[in-house]
Amino acid sequence: MDEQHIASAFDRDLEGIQARIMKMGGLVEEAIMKSARSLENRDVELAETVRKGDKAIDALDELINEETARLIALRSPTAGDLRLVLTVMRISTNLERIGDYSKNIAKRTGVLSQVPAVNDSASALRRMAREVERMLKDALDAYIQRDVELAQDVIERDHEVDQMYNALFREFLTFMMEDPRNITPCMHLHFIGKNIERMGDHVTAIAEQVLYLVTGERPEEARAKADTTSTTPLEE
Amino acid sequence: MDEQHIASAFDRDLEGIQARIMKMGGLVEEAIMKSARSLENRDVELAETVRKGDKAIDALDELINEETARLIALRSPTAGDLRLVLTVMRISTNLERIGDYSKNIAKRTGVLSQVPAVNDSASALRRMAREVERMLKDALDAYIQRDVELAQDVIERDHEVDQMYNALFREFLTFMMEDPRNITPCMHLHFIGKNIERMGDHVTAIAEQVLYLVTGERPEEARAKADTTSTTPLEE
Repeated sequence: MDEQHIASAFDRDLEGIQARIMKMGGLVEEAIMKSARSLENRDVELAETVRKGDKAIDALDELINEETARLIALRSPTAGDLRLVLTVMRISTNLERIGDYSKNIAKRTGVLSQVPAVNDSASALRRMAREVERMLKDALDAYIQRDVELAQDVIERDHEVDQMYNALFREFLTFMMEDPRNITPCMHLHFIGKNIERMGDHVTAIAEQVLYLVTGERPEEARAKADTTSTTPLEE
Repeated sequence: MDEQHIASAFDRDLEGIQARIMKMGGLVEEAIMKSARSLENRDVELAETVRKGDKAIDALDELINEETARLIALRSPTAGDLRLVLTVMRISTNLERIGDYSKNIAKRTGVLSQVPAVNDSASALRRMAREVERMLKDALDAYIQRDVELAQDVIERDHEVDQMYNALFREFLTFMMEDPRNITPCMHLHFIGKNIERMGDHVTAIAEQVLYLVTGERPEEARAKADTTSTTPLEE
């Protein structure tokens, strides 16, 4: 009876922390889409709300870190429970980083709104961000439902994001070579593309945490890295 | 007496984990310098050892994560001891990322060795990497010695790294505008610069962990971000 009592106290504490994770996830999804939309619509005010909103995300991460530490100290969870608490901490860290990338995109929006658009690059970036936002939603659903299949699906979809990024990378190179006036804007746009691609990596890390949580095994370290631009042959 | 016995078991376990952190730190310092040197000397073989060596760093991170989880489960540390264990976990994560950035630089070395050098950019990047490597050494020393002043010094020096990056960013823009053949190599070199700048951020995070560990307070969230390139005015 006593043990059951302890177990349910742990569950209750954990539930509170998980509610914060979900709240944080919602804020991060919003930040992704708002930053991408502000870029596409040259909406500097919307970008500003993303920059300011990142503080709330950081504060939640901080709070989750404190509460998980307190939970560990107070309830001394072992085995599966401990693994769960450590997973929550890692998911929070991943969410916080995705928030940072959104903020970074919002920062560049101010600068990019002052110059002519480079083709429809901003729309392509928005589409890429949308895919990452959907992946994040699914990764968090997979976490709540302990849905291994959905988590696996998220991991697969990250390859598509990587491919979108690779295509954009080549496009930006072409634009820059065609017209040197495109160089500076394309450097910024390219950065944004890379940031979205990195967001995808962090979403994938969340999905991998779900697999680890359910199966107890880490996904292959050798998960194929599909960003091939680091070895893109150099035109001369 | 019994409590003291438990305390020393905790200390013994923690010492083992800390020894691994130091070993990992040594490997990461080596990876930073080797990747930068391979870039400067166009030494593809050396770059290959960095790529391969990253597996050992990842394995240490994995091991440290397992051992800290086991330590928490087994010894149920509270307050200061728990904070220490969580700090060790975070330092390990930071080191693992710095290792990843080194691997990423090594990947690009193969491609960049095939084309003419863009001025002395590779040497400038090597100097920047050297500064980050020294900062890492000091951050780990600060951790071992619980040296708040040294940790603060590391945090200050990150501004210099940011400034080196900002200068390089502008230089690369100029090279690209001068000659479109510079565009692709400069994109890769610029990425490397950004990777080194991010390494500096992770070293700073380690130094901040030391401050947190000793003082119990998190450094200002508002730590000035000195990378200003996201708001660099666009030449037209």
